[in-house]
Amino acid sequence: MKIGFVGIGAMGECMVRNLLKAGYAVSVFNRTRERAEALVAEGAQLAERIEDAAACEIVITMLANDDATVSTVFDSDFRQAMPADGIHICMATISAELGQRLAAAHAADGRAYISAPVFGRPPAAAAAQLFVAAAGDASALARCQPLFDAMGQKTFVVGSAPEAANVVKISGNFMIASLIETFGEACALTRNYGIDPAQFLDVMTSSIFPAPIYKIYGGLIASQQFEPAGFKLRLGLKDIRLALAAADDKEIALPMASLIRDNYLKALTRGYEDLDWAALALVAQEDAGLKRA
Amino acid sequence: MKIGFVGIGAMGECMVRNLLKAGYAVSVFNRTRERAEALVAEGAQLAERIEDAAACEIVITMLANDDATVSTVFDSDFRQAMPADGIHICMATISAELGQRLAAAHAADGRAYISAPVFGRPPAAAAAQLFVAAAGDASALARCQPLFDAMGQKTFVVGSAPEAANVVKISGNFMIASLIETFGEACALTRNYGIDPAQFLDVMTSSIFPAPIYKIYGGLIASQQFEPAGFKLRLGLKDIRLALAAADDKEIALPMASLIRDNYLKALTRGYEDLDWAALALVAQEDAGLKRA
Amino acid sequence: MKIGFVGIGAMGECMVRNLLKAGYAVSVFNRTRERAEALVAEGAQLAERIEDAAACEIVITMLANDDATVSTVFDSDFRQAMPADGIHICMATISAELGQRLAAAHAADGRAYISAPVFGRPPAAAAAQLFVAAAGDASALARCQPLFDAMGQKTFVVGSAPEAANVVKISGNFMIASLIETFGEACALTRNYGIDPAQFLDVMTSSIFPAPIYKIYGGLIASQQFEPAGFKLRLGLKDIRLALAAADDKEIALPMASLIRDNYLKALTRGYEDLDWAALALVAQEDAGLKRA
Amino acid sequence: MKIGFVGIGAMGECMVRNLLKAGYAVSVFNRTRERAEALVAEGAQLAERIEDAAACEIVITMLANDDATVSTVFDSDFRQAMPADGIHICMATISAELGQRLAAAHAADGRAYISAPVFGRPPAAAAAQLFVAAAGDASALARCQPLFDAMGQKTFVVGSAPEAANVVKISGNFMIASLIETFGEACALTRNYGIDPAQFLDVMTSSIFPAPIYKIYGGLIASQQFEPAGFKLRLGLKDIRLALAAADDKEIALPMASLIRDNYLKALTRGYEDLDWAALALVAQEDAGLKRA
Repeated sequence: MKIGFVGIGAMGECMVRNLLKAGYAVSVFNRTRERAEALVAEGAQLAERIEDAAACEIVITMLANDDATVSTVFDSDFRQAMPADGIHICMATISAELGQRLAAAHAADGRAYISAPVFGRPPAAAAAQLFVAAAGDASALARCQPLFDAMGQKTFVVGSAPEAANVVKISGNFMIASLIETFGEACALTRNYGIDPAQFLDVMTSSIFPAPIYKIYGGLIASQQFEPAGFKLRLGLKDIRLALAAADDKEIALPMASLIRDNYLKALTRGYEDLDWAALALVAQEDAGLKRA
Repeated sequence: MKIGFVGIGAMGECMVRNLLKAGYAVSVFNRTRERAEALVAEGAQLAERIEDAAACEIVITMLANDDATVSTVFDSDFRQAMPADGIHICMATISAELGQRLAAAHAADGRAYISAPVFGRPPAAAAAQLFVAAAGDASALARCQPLFDAMGQKTFVVGSAPEAANVVKISGNFMIASLIETFGEACALTRNYGIDPAQFLDVMTSSIFPAPIYKIYGGLIASQQFEPAGFKLRLGLKDIRLALAAADDKEIALPMASLIRDNYLKALTRGYEDLDWAALALVAQEDAGLKRA
Repeated sequence: MKIGFVGIGAMGECMVRNLLKAGYAVSVFNRTRERAEALVAEGAQLAERIEDAAACEIVITMLANDDATVSTVFDSDFRQAMPADGIHICMATISAELGQRLAAAHAADGRAYISAPVFGRPPAAAAAQLFVAAAGDASALARCQPLFDAMGQKTFVVGSAPEAANVVKISGNFMIASLIETFGEACALTRNYGIDPAQFLDVMTSSIFPAPIYKIYGGLIASQQFEPAGFKLRLGLKDIRLALAAADDKEIALPMASLIRDNYLKALTRGYEDLDWAALALVAQEDAGLKRA
Repeated sequence: MKIGFVGIGAMGECMVRNLLKAGYAVSVFNRTRERAEALVAEGAQLAERIEDAAACEIVITMLANDDATVSTVFDSDFRQAMPADGIHICMATISAELGQRLAAAHAADGRAYISAPVFGRPPAAAAAQLFVAAAGDASALARCQPLFDAMGQKTFVVGSAPEAANVVKISGNFMIASLIETFGEACALTRNYGIDPAQFLDVMTSSIFPAPIYKIYGGLIASQQFEPAGFKLRLGLKDIRLALAAADDKEIALPMASLIRDNYLKALTRGYEDLDWAALALVAQEDAGLKRA
């Protein structure tokens, strides 16, 4: 089976390699052509145009944000190029609204569409250890499953409406951001009582919070190592905005997400946009009178 | 060595049993005498008066809150009854301010004081699997360590100022409350997109949040099983107030704790004080237009 | 001089009457034709098409929101119909972003554009007592001034970039919403201490807050008279969203506006969308355990 | 009639002068004796001890906060010194809880107690233009009315439970603090769009907010003149804490007050405690990336 893959970033690159390893023919397209070309040596075919990738049996998009995805799918002949039984899988973190829009556009064309965003950073992508949250038509999902297996360790089917998967992904990132803010405030408090953040983190992760996610983000916060960014603060803000936008579409409030959004904006004001999104915790500590180490 | 133990609640009862098992003589006092008497059959001695427990080499208090602790230590001859080399260990969740006050009062008397609150619910106490956060004078801590080993699985020494341990405990509970609020809001969002909370929880705890604490509280929230309460909502509010009070003593803001406090107050208004403190998540979901199952 | 007027709602109707009284020829267009026709008996001319209104020397749009304004100006030949020295004045409460977009589009066409939103409800519009916040090119503003004088009691020129006027208007509405929330919370507190809201309002407006705006909104809140709505709650939410959007465009946080937005969303959930936007205060009081009278 | 007056600060001094002008004999006590002595030349009598002031027919306390009031009334023979038909009027801004405690203590002694805090700054006190919010027993209030008339321009009786007056005063200050925060955020937004704060203030106070309180605080904020402080930021924080404490006693949330409290704490962290409490607006503007002028 031939797979099209649009968007060769830090994540996409790893995902393509795993598809190649699994024996798929992969046609890769990237706006900055060099990044796609680098994969040719590893067995990928270069798609000269977006439409060449879209013409494959299954085409995956893994682009930076909503704008790049809209531009790719709606401002080219992407949809027209898709075969009659083609499937478009969007694996990027996009808005619930765009998930709905893609689903509607493909449905109007008689094509299948799956939202399948992933949890995991580049090392997890490289190791084919991603978690995939997928939603859409059941038979299309069944056809995609072998690809998900090639790229990830587990797939969760969360519904038949594609945007459900986008909302799950967005909610997961909201939960991580909340963990960051919370640990930042807890460090602000305990540091004011003379407790070393690394020790506090050790107590917490050795007792009630023995999860890697606490060790990873708690470690960044305790050591104040926000560079180089694993995931930039501006992208963290983007995802919180997606959570609030998804909530707003349903006309509900998420007070904690509002608080986090406002604190991310304060972080931008302080010049932290290129730091890791864990630097949200820096705002909490600075607001409590503590200096950056 | 003879140990005094004041406060035979659901936690204290288990802790006394583990001290007895470890071979200590334990003199137990409880305001409601029957609860102390029940332990006599298991080998404890009944202290007729608070002072009888306080006269032991080491006396542990494990009372419900600040008021009960103050009443025990300051409104009786507790301190006068302590031997010259006696140690008072307060293992309850009390305020940082009371931790400081106890430390100062005992120091003025020439007695040792240790704050050693614990993480864990009654089943963990029964299994001697508590986590102990301890702070105070190093030599006194060394004398207490065998007792902590008898009651818990691990002890973290977080400083020499006793209130540091209280702040660590309070911060841990704040982090749990924040997890509850966050998961409540995330469920409010995902339920509005048709995603079943149990499934959402499964995705989260199978991927980025594979920690028991998420499974426990997420499970309560997803199933809306808030009765019987493992830890009552009113007590959760109490602990968030302790976090804010500890922050206020240092004149710092904890915005997320403020938000949680306000939502706990709304929960009281809705009559949820005797539900599990996970019912904080109910407020988030109701405010998003969702009914209690 | 001939004036085009698009958007004959409760406000626009009064504004047209005052232009007619001042001797202007007014060509009126409204999507629901009947509302425009009603003004013909009073001297207005009926514009059959949007373009007929736009062809006047000065064309005023007074539409419900961004969407209606965009549709009018960008989805018709509105701009092409404008004369070479024509001026478009948008007097509605629109987003800062749309203010900028309109300014840019008209500039590209070589036409003048003025943002001139107004403060005041229909009775003030009827009495030509509106306050006009205007911004744009100075010479165009000078040509518009007689019209503003015919419709309002005072004009404030707040800058040469049209969106400045939109931001001033949006900020004013944010300040009113904040007043509503604040008074709602203050009533929640004082009612819990047995103080009658009408009496509390009397104390406040007779002492430190002797402003009509406090009497008007405080009176609605104290008497819980939220119907009929002078300004619907959903529109209040819209304007708070505009404030947050304008802030977001500059990447700044407005924490109080975030709080108000979230509470307006809760009000929607409770079914209050058609009540007066002062019903925001109802949420504050309900959350404090008080029943609607 | 002889009046005792305890607490000769910037306010008390003016209030005593007005009582003297109205023909009352006033016995003044102040911890720092010199401030009381200065009034002797103007006709006051010096009370050597608190009890000498308390022995008058009516004794007024006008002290800085709860602690000073508690110390005066409960740590001296104040109550014992009061005559059988004596009345204690507390005109300071104290907590609702202390209002209740004073009422209960005096009731137990068979003495009358009135809470009568005032709105107004020293210039208003000097001009006998204060607003008095009074509560307590009706016959005692009737006896106090001539004194209120001598010191203020208007008295509002807000209930028979004395703490009602304290809550009204606290709520009024909360409303002012909210106005400050709101205007600070509005300036943060409008300044980011190039609008001069003085001009924005002029628009607002010339149109929908034509109240002196907006001109006063808006003027301080627009000109960033926070020194010398008319009312210090630390005292503003104190009053917000009183509002939250009064709410907490009734177990209700005041989300906006929580937000303001947190921002006042951030202001302390930035070293603004001795600035005018309007400097709360500085935090909002700094958090939006704006520098202090």
